[in-house]
Amino acid sequence: MKRKLRMGMVGGGQGAFIGSVHRIAALMDGKMELVAGAFSSNAKRSKASGKELFLDPKRVYASYQEMAQKEASLPPEERIDFVSIVTPNNSHFAVAKTFLEAGFNVICDKPVTFDLKEAKKLRAIVKKSGKVFALTHNYTGYPMVKEARQMVRSGKLGRILKIVAEYPQGWLIDSIEKDGQKQAAWRTDPKQAGASCCIGDIGTHAENLGRYITGLEIDSLCAEFTSFLPGRKLEDDGNILIRYKGGAKGILYASQISAGEENSLNIRVYGTKASLEWQQEFPNELIVKYPDAPRQIHRRGNDYNSKVVQGFARIPAGHPEAFLEAFANIYLEAAKAIADEVSGRKIKTHDFPSIEDGVEGMAFIETTVKSAKSKTKWTKFIRT
Amino acid sequence: MKRKLRMGMVGGGQGAFIGSVHRIAALMDGKMELVAGAFSSNAKRSKASGKELFLDPKRVYASYQEMAQKEASLPPEERIDFVSIVTPNNSHFAVAKTFLEAGFNVICDKPVTFDLKEAKKLRAIVKKSGKVFALTHNYTGYPMVKEARQMVRSGKLGRILKIVAEYPQGWLIDSIEKDGQKQAAWRTDPKQAGASCCIGDIGTHAENLGRYITGLEIDSLCAEFTSFLPGRKLEDDGNILIRYKGGAKGILYASQISAGEENSLNIRVYGTKASLEWQQEFPNELIVKYPDAPRQIHRRGNDYNSKVVQGFARIPAGHPEAFLEAFANIYLEAAKAIADEVSGRKIKTHDFPSIEDGVEGMAFIETTVKSAKSKTKWTKFIRT
Amino acid sequence: MKRKLRMGMVGGGQGAFIGSVHRIAALMDGKMELVAGAFSSNAKRSKASGKELFLDPKRVYASYQEMAQKEASLPPEERIDFVSIVTPNNSHFAVAKTFLEAGFNVICDKPVTFDLKEAKKLRAIVKKSGKVFALTHNYTGYPMVKEARQMVRSGKLGRILKIVAEYPQGWLIDSIEKDGQKQAAWRTDPKQAGASCCIGDIGTHAENLGRYITGLEIDSLCAEFTSFLPGRKLEDDGNILIRYKGGAKGILYASQISAGEENSLNIRVYGTKASLEWQQEFPNELIVKYPDAPRQIHRRGNDYNSKVVQGFARIPAGHPEAFLEAFANIYLEAAKAIADEVSGRKIKTHDFPSIEDGVEGMAFIETTVKSAKSKTKWTKFIRT
Amino acid sequence: MKRKLRMGMVGGGQGAFIGSVHRIAALMDGKMELVAGAFSSNAKRSKASGKELFLDPKRVYASYQEMAQKEASLPPEERIDFVSIVTPNNSHFAVAKTFLEAGFNVICDKPVTFDLKEAKKLRAIVKKSGKVFALTHNYTGYPMVKEARQMVRSGKLGRILKIVAEYPQGWLIDSIEKDGQKQAAWRTDPKQAGASCCIGDIGTHAENLGRYITGLEIDSLCAEFTSFLPGRKLEDDGNILIRYKGGAKGILYASQISAGEENSLNIRVYGTKASLEWQQEFPNELIVKYPDAPRQIHRRGNDYNSKVVQGFARIPAGHPEAFLEAFANIYLEAAKAIADEVSGRKIKTHDFPSIEDGVEGMAFIETTVKSAKSKTKWTKFIRT
Repeated sequence: MKRKLRMGMVGGGQGAFIGSVHRIAALMDGKMELVAGAFSSNAKRSKASGKELFLDPKRVYASYQEMAQKEASLPPEERIDFVSIVTPNNSHFAVAKTFLEAGFNVICDKPVTFDLKEAKKLRAIVKKSGKVFALTHNYTGYPMVKEARQMVRSGKLGRILKIVAEYPQGWLIDSIEKDGQKQAAWRTDPKQAGASCCIGDIGTHAENLGRYITGLEIDSLCAEFTSFLPGRKLEDDGNILIRYKGGAKGILYASQISAGEENSLNIRVYGTKASLEWQQEFPNELIVKYPDAPRQIHRRGNDYNSKVVQGFARIPAGHPEAFLEAFANIYLEAAKAIADEVSGRKIKTHDFPSIEDGVEGMAFIETTVKSAKSKTKWTKFIRT
Repeated sequence: MKRKLRMGMVGGGQGAFIGSVHRIAALMDGKMELVAGAFSSNAKRSKASGKELFLDPKRVYASYQEMAQKEASLPPEERIDFVSIVTPNNSHFAVAKTFLEAGFNVICDKPVTFDLKEAKKLRAIVKKSGKVFALTHNYTGYPMVKEARQMVRSGKLGRILKIVAEYPQGWLIDSIEKDGQKQAAWRTDPKQAGASCCIGDIGTHAENLGRYITGLEIDSLCAEFTSFLPGRKLEDDGNILIRYKGGAKGILYASQISAGEENSLNIRVYGTKASLEWQQEFPNELIVKYPDAPRQIHRRGNDYNSKVVQGFARIPAGHPEAFLEAFANIYLEAAKAIADEVSGRKIKTHDFPSIEDGVEGMAFIETTVKSAKSKTKWTKFIRT
Repeated sequence: MKRKLRMGMVGGGQGAFIGSVHRIAALMDGKMELVAGAFSSNAKRSKASGKELFLDPKRVYASYQEMAQKEASLPPEERIDFVSIVTPNNSHFAVAKTFLEAGFNVICDKPVTFDLKEAKKLRAIVKKSGKVFALTHNYTGYPMVKEARQMVRSGKLGRILKIVAEYPQGWLIDSIEKDGQKQAAWRTDPKQAGASCCIGDIGTHAENLGRYITGLEIDSLCAEFTSFLPGRKLEDDGNILIRYKGGAKGILYASQISAGEENSLNIRVYGTKASLEWQQEFPNELIVKYPDAPRQIHRRGNDYNSKVVQGFARIPAGHPEAFLEAFANIYLEAAKAIADEVSGRKIKTHDFPSIEDGVEGMAFIETTVKSAKSKTKWTKFIRT
Repeated sequence: MKRKLRMGMVGGGQGAFIGSVHRIAALMDGKMELVAGAFSSNAKRSKASGKELFLDPKRVYASYQEMAQKEASLPPEERIDFVSIVTPNNSHFAVAKTFLEAGFNVICDKPVTFDLKEAKKLRAIVKKSGKVFALTHNYTGYPMVKEARQMVRSGKLGRILKIVAEYPQGWLIDSIEKDGQKQAAWRTDPKQAGASCCIGDIGTHAENLGRYITGLEIDSLCAEFTSFLPGRKLEDDGNILIRYKGGAKGILYASQISAGEENSLNIRVYGTKASLEWQQEFPNELIVKYPDAPRQIHRRGNDYNSKVVQGFARIPAGHPEAFLEAFANIYLEAAKAIADEVSGRKIKTHDFPSIEDGVEGMAFIETTVKSAKSKTKWTKFIRT
C-alpha cells in the first residue's frame, strides 16, 4: 500500500461494543484510518460519537444513506475506500446494498444478513458490484486456527473422521433482556435477530471455524433447541449432531445459559493419523495428539509453524496475541484486497471470510431451525 | 470389621488387565484378602495364575462352577465372603447367578450382563438372594465426583439445565482386532460384546457418571453410531443428544477412534446458579463456575470439601490419588455392605453402584442402539 | 482529550521489533497518531521507514537532534506532543535529555538508561523540565497484574511474606550473536547493553513487576550470574535471593538459556491470608490460593474485578486480551498525563511507570552486578 | 518371588499418617503382607493398632526391641523378611540399627536419621550387615520422574545447565503446633526434628529429586532460612542458590508457609538441547521443551516411553496413577532386593533410594543449615 486506507463506519456509536472492536482492529497496524461515519440512526448521537472519535464533523452523517451519497460525491483522493457495517443483523442487507451500489468496498459484521433469502440476494449484489466484501467471522483470524487449517489441509491429520465444536457462554442465564440490557434485548427478539438467537449469534462461529479448518461440508443435521428462560422466544441453547459429506461426523453446540462460561469457543478435529484441539480462551496454543507419540503443543510465533501462518504474528512467541489481533488479521487481509480494488488492480485471493461464508452460515442457521422445529428429524442441509 | 474379608475371583488370569485392577483395589486398604479363584476357563492357566498370586493351590479352581460348589462346602470361617467377576460381558450373568444362588455376595465388572433381558433377570435373582451385588462403575469412586454429586444434590448449582458428558479414546483408530489384540477382539465382536462396542464399553460410564452426579432420568435420545474402521461390525464412535425428564438437555458422546485421546472421560453440569466440570485424567480437581464470581477449583483432600467426601481421601491434599484409589473406594463401600451381610446384620445403604445401575445402563445401551438403527429418530428411553 | 495526541518516534526503523510494538500500542485506541520520526541514525533508512509508515516526508528526520529542533520550531498546533524513544539502551539518556530540554514529553523504552549514574541525571532533568516521562515497563499494563496489585494493596493477602518472580527465556541457548542476530548482538555486548545482559534485559521486568504489585523495597540481595555460552561477556542467566525491608523474602531469576522457554515471566506472591499467581503467557487469569478455601481463578473482564481494573478491559471476559493491549494501557495512561501537560493543566497521577521506576530498576541492576561479582556476598541495595 | 514377603512395622499406629501410606504401598500389589508390628511406644496403643490391622496379637509387640528379638527367634519360614520404620526422625537410627543387627532388612522413612553423624554411622552398620536398606524418598517412584531421569541420562537434554526445584506447602501458615497438631509439633521442635524443619522435611525431597534425575553433585550453596511464625524455632521457609560441580547452577526452595499451596513439588531441568518440567500434583505428565520444535507432553503408560519406565505402569495411559502407586514402586523395587537377600541370592541393583541417598540428604541439610546460619556466605557442600 502507498497510503493508509480510508475507512467509514455505519453503526458503532457510543455504548456499542462491536464498533469499538472493529475500530481497534482497523487502526492497530497503521494501515487504515477512520475518516467518516454514520454511527447511529439518531443523528445527534452519531455526531457526538464522531466527535469522540476526533472526526471532521463534516464527515459524521445523520444516516447511512446520507453517508453513502455524500462520500460518493467526494473526490477519489478523499472519499472512503471502504465501509465497516456494525449495525444489528436486520439492517446489514440494506446498508451493504447501499454502499456496494454506491461503489464502496464493504467489511460487514456477522451474521451477514437477517435471513438466507437476503444473504443470497446480497451475494448477487456483491458479484455484480465487483467490490470487496469481507465478513468478520473473526475467530478464523487467529494464527493457530490458521495453523490448524494448514495441518488439516496438508494431510497431517489424515482423513478427517470427527469434529467437535463448542461455543458455551453464560451471560443469558438471567433474563437480562427484560432489564433493558441492549445486547441481550435485540438478540432475543425474533424481529431483530431472526429465527435463531444462540445458534445465529455464536453457533455460526463454531460452524464457520469447523468449515475453515477442515473444508468439510454438512450433509444433514439433527438439532435440538431450548429456550431455558421463561418467556424467551428464541433458543438460548442449541445442540446439534452432524453428518458431513464423505462420512465424517460432528457434534456442534452453542449455549448462552451455561453459567460461568465466558467465550469458551473450542474445537477438536479427529483424523486417521492425528487430532488437534484449539481453545479460543487460550488461543496461542494448538494441541496436536498422536496415537503413538507424545502430544505436541504448537505455540504461536515460532519458526516451526507453517510459513503462511508466520506472517500473522506481530510479536514473538511467548508474548501472547489475542482476540483483537485476530480481528485485525481479518481487517489486514481484507485491506490487501481493498487496496487492490482501489488501485484498479485485479483483486487477489486473500484469507478473509467472504460473502460465500455468509451465505453458508445463513443456510446453516436455517437448516438447524428447520430441524429443531421438527422435534424429531434429521434434516438435509439447505444448499444455496 | 473384625477380620479381613475373604475374596474369590472369576476371570482375571495371566494377561488380563481388569483382574489386576480389581485385585489392587481390593487389597490396598488391608480390609480384604484374595483366597480363591477360577482365573481362566483353561484349567492350566487358572492354576498358573493362582500360583503367581501365591494362593493355596487347593483353592485355585478349574471352573467357576467348581469354585462355587467347593467354596460353598467349606466351613463358614474359611470360605470366601464374596466373589469378584472379571470375565467378558457375555458370561457375567451365568457366573453371577451361580454364585448368588450358592450364597455368595458378588462384585461384578460392568456392563452388568450381555443384554437388558439378562440384566432384568439378574435383578430378580439378586433380590431373591438377599446378597450384596456391587457393579464396578468405578469412576463414581473418585472423591471429586462424589463432591460434584454433593454439590448438585444440595442445590448449590440450582436447577440442572444441561449435561455434557464425553468419553473419547483413540486406541481403536487402527484395526488392532485383526492383529489379535484380545481387548479389541472381544469388544468389536457382537457375539461377545453384544449390540454395541463403544457405547457399551465406555459410553455407559459417561451415562452412569451423569446419573450419579445429577440423578436425572433420560426421557428420550437421538443417537448416531459410526463404524469408522472397515469391516468393523459394531460402532467405534457414538454421539447422542438427550432429553431428560423435567426439561434438562444433554450431549453424550463416546469414541474409540479419537486419535491420541487416552481416557479423557469428562463431564460438565450446568445449573441455574453455577456449573461444574470434572476430568478423569486430572481427577483431584473439580472446577466450579459462577455467573458473577471467580471460578473455584475444589481440590481433593481439603477440609472445605463436604464431610461425606472427606472420608474417601486416604492422603492429604496435594498428594494426588487416582484411578486405583477410586476403584478401591467402590470396593471399600461394597465391603461394608458385605461385612454386614456375612455378620447377619441388616445391610445398610452404602455408596456403590448396584444391580439397578446395571439394569439402567443396559437400558441406555439398548435405547441408543435402537435410535442409532433408526437413522432418523428420537427414541423413548426403554423403561425397566 | 479533544484531539488525538501527536506522536514522534526515535528509533524503530525497518527490522526493529520494539518500535513496531510501540506504534501498535499507541495507535490501537485511536487516541494518538504518529506524525514524525527519526527512525534510524542512517538518514536513508529513516526516510524509507517513514515512507512505509505513510508519514509526511518533511517530518521524517535524519537524526533525533534535527527532529527535536525542527519539531520545536513548528507551531504548537502542529508539532508533536510527545516522543517515543525506542533506540538501544546506550542512547536513551542523550535522546531523552534532548527532547525534554526541547520541551517535549517523553515515553521511553526500558531500561531507562545505560547505567545508574545516567538514570539519576535523567531524573534531575525530568524534574526540572516539568514534562511527562513514562517508561514502558509494559507488563504492569496487564489488567490482571493491576488486579493483583489491588488485592495486595487492599490487604486481601494479609502481610506479604514471600515473592517468587521468574523470567526464563531460551532464545540465547545458541551463540546467535555470532551469526549477526542484531537483538542478540547488542544485548550481549557490554558497550551497548551495560554491565548486565539477562538481568538488565528481563530480570528488571521481574523486579518491576514484584515492586508494582507489592510495593516492597529490597534491603539486600545475593546474586549468582553465569555466562553459559563460551565467549559471552555478560551473564545469560541470573539467580537472586532477596531480603525485603520488613522481613519478607524473595527469589528472582531470569534466564536466556532455558531451552524452549519463550517469555515465561511469572510471579507468585505469598501473604499471611492468601497468595496469588500470575503468568504472562496466560495473562487473563489471576490465581488466588487460600489456606482453607477453594482456589479462585479471577479472569479479566468480569464485574467481580476491582473497579479500577475494569477500566483497562477493552473487550468482555472470555475474549482474551494480551501483550499489545497491556502495552497500549501504558500508553493510554501516559497519554492522559500528556494531555494534561499540553493543555497546561496540572498533571494528575496516572498509572504508568515513571522515571523513579527507571532509577530503581538501574539500582537493582547495579546491585545484582556488584553482588554477583563478589561471588560470595549478600549486598545492600544501592539507595538512590 | 515364590511367596509374599512378610513385613513388620515400627511406628504407624492409630492416627499416624505415614504408617498408613507405607502399608497401602506395601499391600497394593499383592507381593507383601503385614504380619507383625510395634506400632507405638505405648504398648496398649500398639495392641489396639494391631487389632485394627487384623494381626495375630502374638505378633503385636510393646516395643521395637521386643519385636526385633522375638521375631529373630521365630523360625525362618515365619519371621518377618523386613521391617518398615515409620517413627519420627530422632528414633530412626536406633530402630534401624536394632533390626539390621538382628538380621532384618529395613525400609525406612526419610530423612534417614536425626543428623549427619548418625547417618554415617548407620551407613557403616548397613554395609556391615549385608542387609537391604531402602529409604522412601518416594517421589522418585513416579514413572514420569523415572522417564525424566532416562531422558537426562541418555543425553536427550544435552549438557545440564540449570535445575529449578521447588516444594511449597502452606499448612504451617498458622501456629498449629501450639494447638497440639502432632505433625506440626514434632517437625517444629529441634529436639525431635533436628536442625531444620522445612528443608529437612521437604527441601530434602526436592534435592533428592534433582539428584535422582540429573546425577549432578552440589559443589556449594547459599541458603536463606526464615521462621515466619512468631516463636517458631526452626525455619518454615528456605531458599537456596546452588553451584553444581561441572558448572551447572540451581535454585531450590521449600516452604511451609506458602498459603494455599498443598504439595506443589516441581522440578525444571534445563539442558543445552532441551529442557523438562514435572509437577507432583499432575504426575502423569512430563513436559519437554525444545528450542526449535513444539513442546511435547509425555504421558505415563504409553509405549513411546522408555522401556525401563513402562514396567512401572500398572494401568494404561489416561487412567492416572498417583502418589500411592509411586510409593508402592519404591516398595516393589526394594522387595526385589529383599527377595534376593532372603533367598540367599546375590542382591542385584534395583531402583530404590539407598543409605547413600540418606547420607547425601543429611549432608545437604547440614550444609544448608550452616550456610543459613552464616547469614552471608556461600558454603562448600559437606562431603561424606
